[in-house]
Amino acid sequence: MSSMKSIVMQDGKVQLTNIDIPQPGPGQVLVKSLACGICGSDLHITRHGSEVFGIFQKMGLLPETMEASPKVLLGHEFCAEVVSFGADTSSKFNPGDRVTCVPILLSKEGAGVGVTPGIHGAYSEYFIVDEALLLAVPDNLPSAAAAVTEPLAVGLHAANRAAMQADEVALIAGCGPIGLATIAALKLQGVKTIIASDPQQSKRDMAKEYGATHCVDPTAEDEVKFASEQAAGKRVVIIECAGIHQLINSFILRAPAHASLIITGIHTADTKVNFGYATVKEMDIKFSYYYTPEEFAESLQNIADGKIDWQKMCTGKVGIDGVSAAFDTLMQPNDHVKVIIEPWRNGALESL
Amino acid sequence: MSSMKSIVMQDGKVQLTNIDIPQPGPGQVLVKSLACGICGSDLHITRHGSEVFGIFQKMGLLPETMEASPKVLLGHEFCAEVVSFGADTSSKFNPGDRVTCVPILLSKEGAGVGVTPGIHGAYSEYFIVDEALLLAVPDNLPSAAAAVTEPLAVGLHAANRAAMQADEVALIAGCGPIGLATIAALKLQGVKTIIASDPQQSKRDMAKEYGATHCVDPTAEDEVKFASEQAAGKRVVIIECAGIHQLINSFILRAPAHASLIITGIHTADTKVNFGYATVKEMDIKFSYYYTPEEFAESLQNIADGKIDWQKMCTGKVGIDGVSAAFDTLMQPNDHVKVIIEPWRNGALESL
Repeated sequence: MSSMKSIVMQDGKVQLTNIDIPQPGPGQVLVKSLACGICGSDLHITRHGSEVFGIFQKMGLLPETMEASPKVLLGHEFCAEVVSFGADTSSKFNPGDRVTCVPILLSKEGAGVGVTPGIHGAYSEYFIVDEALLLAVPDNLPSAAAAVTEPLAVGLHAANRAAMQADEVALIAGCGPIGLATIAALKLQGVKTIIASDPQQSKRDMAKEYGATHCVDPTAEDEVKFASEQAAGKRVVIIECAGIHQLINSFILRAPAHASLIITGIHTADTKVNFGYATVKEMDIKFSYYYTPEEFAESLQNIADGKIDWQKMCTGKVGIDGVSAAFDTLMQPNDHVKVIIEPWRNGALESL
Repeated sequence: MSSMKSIVMQDGKVQLTNIDIPQPGPGQVLVKSLACGICGSDLHITRHGSEVFGIFQKMGLLPETMEASPKVLLGHEFCAEVVSFGADTSSKFNPGDRVTCVPILLSKEGAGVGVTPGIHGAYSEYFIVDEALLLAVPDNLPSAAAAVTEPLAVGLHAANRAAMQADEVALIAGCGPIGLATIAALKLQGVKTIIASDPQQSKRDMAKEYGATHCVDPTAEDEVKFASEQAAGKRVVIIECAGIHQLINSFILRAPAHASLIITGIHTADTKVNFGYATVKEMDIKFSYYYTPEEFAESLQNIADGKIDWQKMCTGKVGIDGVSAAFDTLMQPNDHVKVIIEPWRNGALESL
């Protein structure tokens, strides 16, 4: 066994391909992908790869000489099974153990598992992780549950960046996985007023399940005005989880004085903004992208403890030969929240 | 005596005019303007009044029905002398007492003395203030010194918004009065590395006098790269005091990871920004515009205690009939930092 099935993204398309199984280096572990979430950023990078990689190149995180449309092996929200070990590993884990981890490789600065060209991801049957980063997945937890750790960590980090008092008002714009994860984190932190905004009824309904106290359809009502009214002078924290760059200027225009704007979307296109409004309102704008290893571990623990219902979020499952068609579905308006790939089997996208 | 000399700004011009002396209402005091600083925002509002007032109108701070190019009686950085009292005032102050205060009127929400159309400012011989806001100016302090309280408060507020640790690195971009005031405040707060950036040698020299530890000419060297190198991984806080809106995207592009950007300039034009860089760097962007009454009082005290040398900043004085020509001078590149108007006398702009 030296080759495996892998989803390869290139030129805006994802395709099922056979590639070599990678070899774990020093301190590394070869793992088998049991479950991997499809992330909004996987869709974004498929559509707008040149924008994303252009930013990484300008920041020195990718070589300037990289080809314009590189192959990417997607998959960074995973639960995996330990298969074999590279040199310099301990006996902390055994083959068959289920694990998850922060999707980075320690040996290569800025290297994201399932993002950086040349690094294997969890949309493949097998991939490589660092032993030092691995967290054991509790036996009673389904693999799909552990795969949800990563988006929950993104939401927890956004909530931590917001640093809210209980009586301040949160407005979560966009109730996909990150919006829901943020709502769940804010609820655990004791924030009393959590307003969920999404044009889709199904997403608003799910936001309620995760802890939203109010829901607004932004196509029918000014969600920022609603939040300002609820706040009655207290700080409003708008958390952008929609990934629509035009919303940034719109929020700056409509926000009340002293509002904070937390941006979790990845906005790689140029945006026109009038900062005069942000000045007169003395706004804070914070960008939230990563999470800490501690936030990742806390998110796994929240799932294990039943503090956050991971299952409601998982709206679909798909085998490895169904990923390409699933991407076509998810690129169009749809009611899915989180679709989990099981790369060890075949099968079309099915709703749960 | 019922009329007075006043500088009236309208249609992008400032002109010396005779207008009625205003009457103090309940809780208000009529004061004589002894000294009033020319602020960068006075120049900005003269050039870009429709942009500024458009923002105020959209925010509900000015009526939508206001004429397109209203008259504005400028002057919000002042030292004044108590003349007479309206109803419902106490005997806390006496005629002849010298005072300064936060330039707002309590009776009218959002009303700025010397900014809001219809409110008198300190470029006039007389204007109105609220007794409740007045601070006594110590006898030994020149009136010009007290007039510098306001820009120092703006700088102190920017420094407080930055909330820096002693070993983090500050980069102040633009060494006009606000940049210098920010540098002085950061120095008092114990920040050890304060980098001043300005294309003009005279401004950089002055920045050193106020506490800058390093100076960079941004036309000859990348000032952000220099700050990043000095920081060696510690947080870099870029404080934009130049009022050039294109700098915002440039700073976002060039800032190191986890940098903060404090914006004190008033950017009323649309700006093109790529927020993707701010996301990958997890930046914080904070807008600094006002100050608290406590910061204002602290700034006056800092001047009185000799902690900040107000005098170096005051590079020019002008009588009321010289203001119009002084504006022409200040609209062009020049070496002035703060020019003080003495509305009680005539005289052309003279350098100090």
